[in-house]
Amino acid sequence: MKSHNLITMDDVTVDEIHHILETAQSFKEVNERAIKKLPTLRGFTVINVFLEPSTRTRTSFEIAGKRLGADVINFSASGSATVKGESLADTAATLDAMACDIAIVRHKFSGAPAILAQRMEGHIINGGDGMHQHPTQTLLDLFTMKEHLGDLEGKTIGIVGDIAHSRVAGSLAPGLKMMGANPIFIAPPTYLPAVPEQLGAQVCYSLDDALPNLDAVYLLRVQGERADGTAVPSMREYASLYGMNRARMNALSDHAIVMHPGPMNRGIEISADVADDPRSVVLEQVSAGVAVRMALMYLMMGGDQNGAAA
Amino acid sequence: MKSHNLITMDDVTVDEIHHILETAQSFKEVNERAIKKLPTLRGFTVINVFLEPSTRTRTSFEIAGKRLGADVINFSASGSATVKGESLADTAATLDAMACDIAIVRHKFSGAPAILAQRMEGHIINGGDGMHQHPTQTLLDLFTMKEHLGDLEGKTIGIVGDIAHSRVAGSLAPGLKMMGANPIFIAPPTYLPAVPEQLGAQVCYSLDDALPNLDAVYLLRVQGERADGTAVPSMREYASLYGMNRARMNALSDHAIVMHPGPMNRGIEISADVADDPRSVVLEQVSAGVAVRMALMYLMMGGDQNGAAA
Amino acid sequence: MKSHNLITMDDVTVDEIHHILETAQSFKEVNERAIKKLPTLRGFTVINVFLEPSTRTRTSFEIAGKRLGADVINFSASGSATVKGESLADTAATLDAMACDIAIVRHKFSGAPAILAQRMEGHIINGGDGMHQHPTQTLLDLFTMKEHLGDLEGKTIGIVGDIAHSRVAGSLAPGLKMMGANPIFIAPPTYLPAVPEQLGAQVCYSLDDALPNLDAVYLLRVQGERADGTAVPSMREYASLYGMNRARMNALSDHAIVMHPGPMNRGIEISADVADDPRSVVLEQVSAGVAVRMALMYLMMGGDQNGAAA
Repeated sequence: MKSHNLITMDDVTVDEIHHILETAQSFKEVNERAIKKLPTLRGFTVINVFLEPSTRTRTSFEIAGKRLGADVINFSASGSATVKGESLADTAATLDAMACDIAIVRHKFSGAPAILAQRMEGHIINGGDGMHQHPTQTLLDLFTMKEHLGDLEGKTIGIVGDIAHSRVAGSLAPGLKMMGANPIFIAPPTYLPAVPEQLGAQVCYSLDDALPNLDAVYLLRVQGERADGTAVPSMREYASLYGMNRARMNALSDHAIVMHPGPMNRGIEISADVADDPRSVVLEQVSAGVAVRMALMYLMMGGDQNGAAA
Repeated sequence: MKSHNLITMDDVTVDEIHHILETAQSFKEVNERAIKKLPTLRGFTVINVFLEPSTRTRTSFEIAGKRLGADVINFSASGSATVKGESLADTAATLDAMACDIAIVRHKFSGAPAILAQRMEGHIINGGDGMHQHPTQTLLDLFTMKEHLGDLEGKTIGIVGDIAHSRVAGSLAPGLKMMGANPIFIAPPTYLPAVPEQLGAQVCYSLDDALPNLDAVYLLRVQGERADGTAVPSMREYASLYGMNRARMNALSDHAIVMHPGPMNRGIEISADVADDPRSVVLEQVSAGVAVRMALMYLMMGGDQNGAAA
Repeated sequence: MKSHNLITMDDVTVDEIHHILETAQSFKEVNERAIKKLPTLRGFTVINVFLEPSTRTRTSFEIAGKRLGADVINFSASGSATVKGESLADTAATLDAMACDIAIVRHKFSGAPAILAQRMEGHIINGGDGMHQHPTQTLLDLFTMKEHLGDLEGKTIGIVGDIAHSRVAGSLAPGLKMMGANPIFIAPPTYLPAVPEQLGAQVCYSLDDALPNLDAVYLLRVQGERADGTAVPSMREYASLYGMNRARMNALSDHAIVMHPGPMNRGIEISADVADDPRSVVLEQVSAGVAVRMALMYLMMGGDQNGAAA
């Protein structure tokens, strides 16, 4: 791997993305076995530094680490030194002094993982920072898209929702560009970043206009506090204009898939029947998450010298 | 095992109960060794989904899973997707997508484990749901009773306390019936279910009347908020009428035992000296809990093809 | 080991301290390897009973236990039986019934680990109790001092800060005396115990007076709630009189080191540039913590019969 850490999508090359996704393919097969265990990271210490509530991502990393045989430690916000006023840099230096090999960092402030990285010899993986990036989410999304759409070159992916405040979109847009795909932001103007082009995506204000041309529609989770009447008039209005429902499924190409990073707000950004539709690949994204995180940690720690992951 | 899950005592047959308890016997011996470790569930993923506070049961399952070599993950209420409004069914589907083999579910709502089971290919074990059932508690109780009383056929077991709101009683009464024992509910009328016979137990309003005929007296934990003057006049009154104390120990047969699911309120449902009496088997119940949970998970995952558990 | 438990420094002999520190030396080397794993405690169960918030110490013990191959369980305050009113003694008996081999206990009340020890056959390690003792902190401190200062006989160690309320000082002062060193308490009178001599230390009210004679200056963490104008006029005043800063570094001998148990309040008891100075060994203390805890648990459980730890 080119970079010591994975903090933004800039830390991986296109070749590395392909290599991670191929390696994840073999770990996916491991996860489908009864005995889901490899001794690959035995003797390595992985620490989940989740300073913002999360279960899905933390659990995915914890399972990934344990299946590779690593010692996985959870370091949570409550009761931590951070609440006693310790600086992030000192927390990082402390974890490093305990010889942690990989720290996964989730933090409500954009840039926190980068601060930790300055003081750690161990590898940092950004597990989602503020409104910035969430690169392992993007890797698992790319994995899932490739499984359904094949080569992503030239594919058109609609990203729907509160782009401006979404770390998922913040990583996905550049990730898609790296793969040669065309991301389109689909959102009301209040949900768009000031300069959307900076993320390399086109913009479309109407989901209905965009639908027929999409190979995948990626629905962002609506954050309740940002649909309170300020940015959008109401949840109901948002659902009617930007929610994926049965009528819109009919407007989508047959080969197109529906994606969501979870947890879903059924009835808002996605209707219940779309969530459970065969073209919804939300649960495949979850499965891919474990496999991709196994692959990433495996490759970060040097991989298997013999080239055989599983 | 007949059923894929253990949600209520209806999910096990009498023969299966006997098989679980016999298997637990060999795991109990493992737990008495210095090296308490078997590779039986190596490569399997066990997830503790405790959406209601608990330590005793969660710890017991965590120790049981780890001693069998499983990867054990704790998924707690705080900071989980459930607080972000995700449905229980989606949480279950997510855990399934991560290839969890067994999920232990504790939830404040009766029926929650059954909802999770609808969306999981992995096995669900009810770790206590609302006022409904707590079947592994019953299995460990039966194990402990058998150790002291032998065959439970025809034995009389008094269950004392707030039957109506107790998931412990909700599983224990049918479990005892399956073993051919006679459960008797001993409680004031306000602590009894509307139709106690539905649980297959006789009723007695006086502990003192019942005592001489009991082979075991099983004290339920008094929940502070249900002894506030509404259902019973006061804790003190409850203790004087239904608390197990030295005088009542003298009225009990010599062979009879005192049981409690813990944590005990010393001085309320059980006096301190009874808690520490040799006939109190509360700590044996705790030990049995680890062994029985090891046996259950072991058998759920197919057991040892060679028939040798330890 | 002479004592079954490590609750205060009285539980270890001078010879045992030397043996723990020597054993820790070999574990330190293990921690510097890529594969930081030994099968020494495989099949043993270590439980972290942290009934007061902590991350640093809990994580250190968890990493130590896992690197030795033990099953490590976290038992936290929130959601535990203790909040349901269970007595500490019953919690201890419960853990014992689950066959826990070592329990590390952190509690806000002085003496809590001793209470737990009365009901546990397993070993108790005090992970910090109230204002009483924190013996593994002292062991790691002694390890770090020996690495820099060699034999501690006759060395002068200044302990600066709120001695009266510090469990770190409560263990360190007697620990230093055992090693033949001279601890000096450096604090305003309001931060000193009523009879400082009981802890075997001299007293000095002025850090500036003491500095030139110190081989190590050990800065205690200022607890915000005890620098609120009652015991000391203000944080700023405390920092100006007792904070370690660049000017005071210049007054220190070249060979002397600066220590802190962490987490540091930069700008109060230690200035940022002193914290990052080469003579500050704070991070070495953290590393030593993992090694010393590995050594302690290893020796408590009987050590390696062949005499080779690593």
